[in-house]
Amino acid sequence: MASTAGQVIRCKAAIAWEAGKPLVIEEVEVAPPQKMEVRLKILFTSLCHTDVYFWEAKGQHPVFPRILGHEASGIVESVGEGVTELQPGDHVLPVFTGECKECRHCKSEESNMCDLLRINTDRGVMLNDGKSRFSINGKPIYHFVGTSTFSEYTVVHVGCLAKINPLAPLDKVCVLSCGISTGLGATLNVAKPRRGSSVAVFGLGAVGLAAAEGARIAGASRIIGIDLLPDRFEQAKKFGVNEFVNPKDYPKPVQEVIAEMTDGGVDRSVECTGNVNAMISAFECVHDGWGVAVLVGVPHKDAVFQTHPMNVLNERTLKGTFFGNYKPRSDLPSVVEKYMNKELELEKFITHEVTFSEINKAFEYMLKGEGLRCLIRMEE
Amino acid sequence: MASTAGQVIRCKAAIAWEAGKPLVIEEVEVAPPQKMEVRLKILFTSLCHTDVYFWEAKGQHPVFPRILGHEASGIVESVGEGVTELQPGDHVLPVFTGECKECRHCKSEESNMCDLLRINTDRGVMLNDGKSRFSINGKPIYHFVGTSTFSEYTVVHVGCLAKINPLAPLDKVCVLSCGISTGLGATLNVAKPRRGSSVAVFGLGAVGLAAAEGARIAGASRIIGIDLLPDRFEQAKKFGVNEFVNPKDYPKPVQEVIAEMTDGGVDRSVECTGNVNAMISAFECVHDGWGVAVLVGVPHKDAVFQTHPMNVLNERTLKGTFFGNYKPRSDLPSVVEKYMNKELELEKFITHEVTFSEINKAFEYMLKGEGLRCLIRMEE
Ligand SMILES: NC(=O)c1ccc[n+]([C@@H]2O[C@H](COP(=O)([O-])OP(=O)(O)OC[C@H]3O[C@@H](n4cnc5c(N)ncnc54)[C@H](O)[C@@H]3O)[C@@H](O)[C@H]2O)c1
Ligand SMILES: NC(=O)c1ccc[n+]([C@@H]2O[C@H](COP(=O)([O-])OP(=O)(O)OC[C@H]3O[C@@H](n4cnc5c(N)ncnc54)[C@H](O)[C@@H]3O)[C@@H](O)[C@H]2O)c1
Ligand SMILES: [Zn+2]
Ligand SMILES: [Zn+2]
Ligand SMILES: [Zn+2]
Ligand SMILES: [Zn+2]
Repeated sequence: MASTAGQVIRCKAAIAWEAGKPLVIEEVEVAPPQKMEVRLKILFTSLCHTDVYFWEAKGQHPVFPRILGHEASGIVESVGEGVTELQPGDHVLPVFTGECKECRHCKSEESNMCDLLRINTDRGVMLNDGKSRFSINGKPIYHFVGTSTFSEYTVVHVGCLAKINPLAPLDKVCVLSCGISTGLGATLNVAKPRRGSSVAVFGLGAVGLAAAEGARIAGASRIIGIDLLPDRFEQAKKFGVNEFVNPKDYPKPVQEVIAEMTDGGVDRSVECTGNVNAMISAFECVHDGWGVAVLVGVPHKDAVFQTHPMNVLNERTLKGTFFGNYKPRSDLPSVVEKYMNKELELEKFITHEVTFSEINKAFEYMLKGEGLRCLIRMEE
Repeated sequence: MASTAGQVIRCKAAIAWEAGKPLVIEEVEVAPPQKMEVRLKILFTSLCHTDVYFWEAKGQHPVFPRILGHEASGIVESVGEGVTELQPGDHVLPVFTGECKECRHCKSEESNMCDLLRINTDRGVMLNDGKSRFSINGKPIYHFVGTSTFSEYTVVHVGCLAKINPLAPLDKVCVLSCGISTGLGATLNVAKPRRGSSVAVFGLGAVGLAAAEGARIAGASRIIGIDLLPDRFEQAKKFGVNEFVNPKDYPKPVQEVIAEMTDGGVDRSVECTGNVNAMISAFECVHDGWGVAVLVGVPHKDAVFQTHPMNVLNERTLKGTFFGNYKPRSDLPSVVEKYMNKELELEKFITHEVTFSEINKAFEYMLKGEGLRCLIRMEE
């Protein structure tokens, strides 16, 4: 691979030319990495709701043409100036948010919201020079959340790359790059249920099921799944969910249903829907005295979280998390190890697989709500 | 004292005959303690807002005639059946909320909201037989939050009594029985600021100043007091408050003012006003990534706490506390020790003193907003 270092690479990428239009696989030029940047070969990528959301670009300032994609695994091809932690051949997971290791957030034990590399969905360029590393016939193609993994090669800031165990199968740990770590970390790092406790998980999509997987790993004895879709329960059983509540089946608020089922409320709840009513229910369904509710879902712009302050005063805790509170570089390698130790199962999250040329099929599955994660294999 | 055990005691008590009318000192009969009850001689009591609130009884189901009072210190006179932890002569602080040591809350490390002895402001009788231990000419006089300390002798459930160091001066540690412990514990047990951090305290009454005292003890370097009354700052300086913000001085929300003063927000905030707007400001003024806001103030019945869910998702924490998360029996003795070790100063909270016969003066000071705590000395 050393032969390509410092040179422009020509390779295939899936271009989103316009909002909502199928991606088109085209040949792009990928410039060499600049200061603190790394160029990597993507081996696997998978589709997440956030890609679809910014592809649809409804009510957003549109950034097109763009290369989407942020859940992926790959191998370092070359590194730019100042990069000492990574070298060609290293196995990495790119992450939509980064860790500069210098700012107040990176230095805080509690936060992973790096001032320098925190997710920015509007920016389509690299930080170093405010330009794109992708082009077609000299015209720039924009980046997406600093990752743009729907390309055979991409350029990423070193702070957005987790160096992982080279023995880890890249077609599995790929899904740890976004949604699965988000749900898992929400439970393990933020809600922190004790062994034998009860956990309610709102929303049984990939993120919610990863939160349930976290509860299973933590030894929770009751894992109550809540979803508006009745067929979600069957699948959720594989993730440790052992009770199910569909809010539509009851005339009263679901928080009351859960409080009755659990003698006053669950010990922990994790909200993975993005719906503000579910957020309120998730908070109000935890037990007074010790209950902790964690919000994960990304809400509507105009959403308002509301509750009676007595619900707070009665010693409940409300927390929010971003990427499961994992710091990408410091913490993700150990999540990969959890998979290697067979503590964490990933296979069950990967319900579909397509080749890179079939990438639009992955969008169709997601739009139909079929399955959890569709793996996209870059090499045909 | 042994001579009175098992017998009715006749002593003086301040009776609230009607809502909002001056208390009347009368002779009452105090029955002996029953199962799990203790009769104590009150030496000192002080007036708290909650006494005034239930004396005014606005919009409440009135419970009169009643003996108010819940912040106090005293000495055990006799104990009822089953009481093994206390004996005549022990020095105690009665507390409006209890610790049965048996329920899920008492067994939880996190909660102090005992199922059996949690505050109940409507109940005017003892748990054991549903009757009052106070009477005048055979007619019952109701209890208040299980303490009724505006009496020379009172009967309290053993679970609502903290046995303290007999060397502690009862005229000082008296104020630890409610408000001061509430504010202090909100900071030390719940907000837990680190050394060198910034803490915002909303409301500079006795509870807020105790929260500030907690921040001082924890080694916070910036303690920002927020109050609508400009003259609160002068006094607050004695409690470690070193910056002051009056929301009325700014055209924008106070959370924005604080965020600008602190490069994005304070590390911790403690709300001690009872005003829901202050609660929202207290939450929104903490830094993303690691900020923790703690609500202490008792809100209006119809208050609604509202915020955009992104404020939560950005890794802020919202918590509420009741009696500063102290378990009365297990934890209060160590707070008394903090005073004995000179870690905690109490003298500065006691701004007034009256004799028992002047108890209505204490109400006047509080209604005028004069001072912090008025000590009521039972022995003339
Ligand atoms: N905080 C982060 O770092 C982060 C990262 C990735 C994803 N997310 C967010 O997590 C959320 C979940 O992601 P996903 O990929 O699992 O989504 P998904 O759409 O696959 O799953 C969401 C599930 O929630 C259910 N649901 C919707 N409203 C509900 C309600 N009121 N009550 C109960 N269930 C309800 C849906 O039926 C669905 O099954 C999204 O909001 C996503 O944006 C957050
Ligand atoms: N949770 C508990 O266990 C517990 C125990 C005791 C007291 N409390 C509550 O704590 C609160 C404070 O008690 P206190 O005795 O110190 O009361 P206080 O009335 O002496 O002090 C409250 C202060 O808040 C200020 N204030 C009011 N609205 C404000 C606003 N919007 N912004 C800034 N400042 C504002 C007032 O000017 C006043 O100085 C009360 O609500 C009381 O009920 C709670
Ligand atoms: Zn994602
Ligand atoms: Zn950083
Ligand atoms: Zn009080
Ligand atoms: Zn109890």
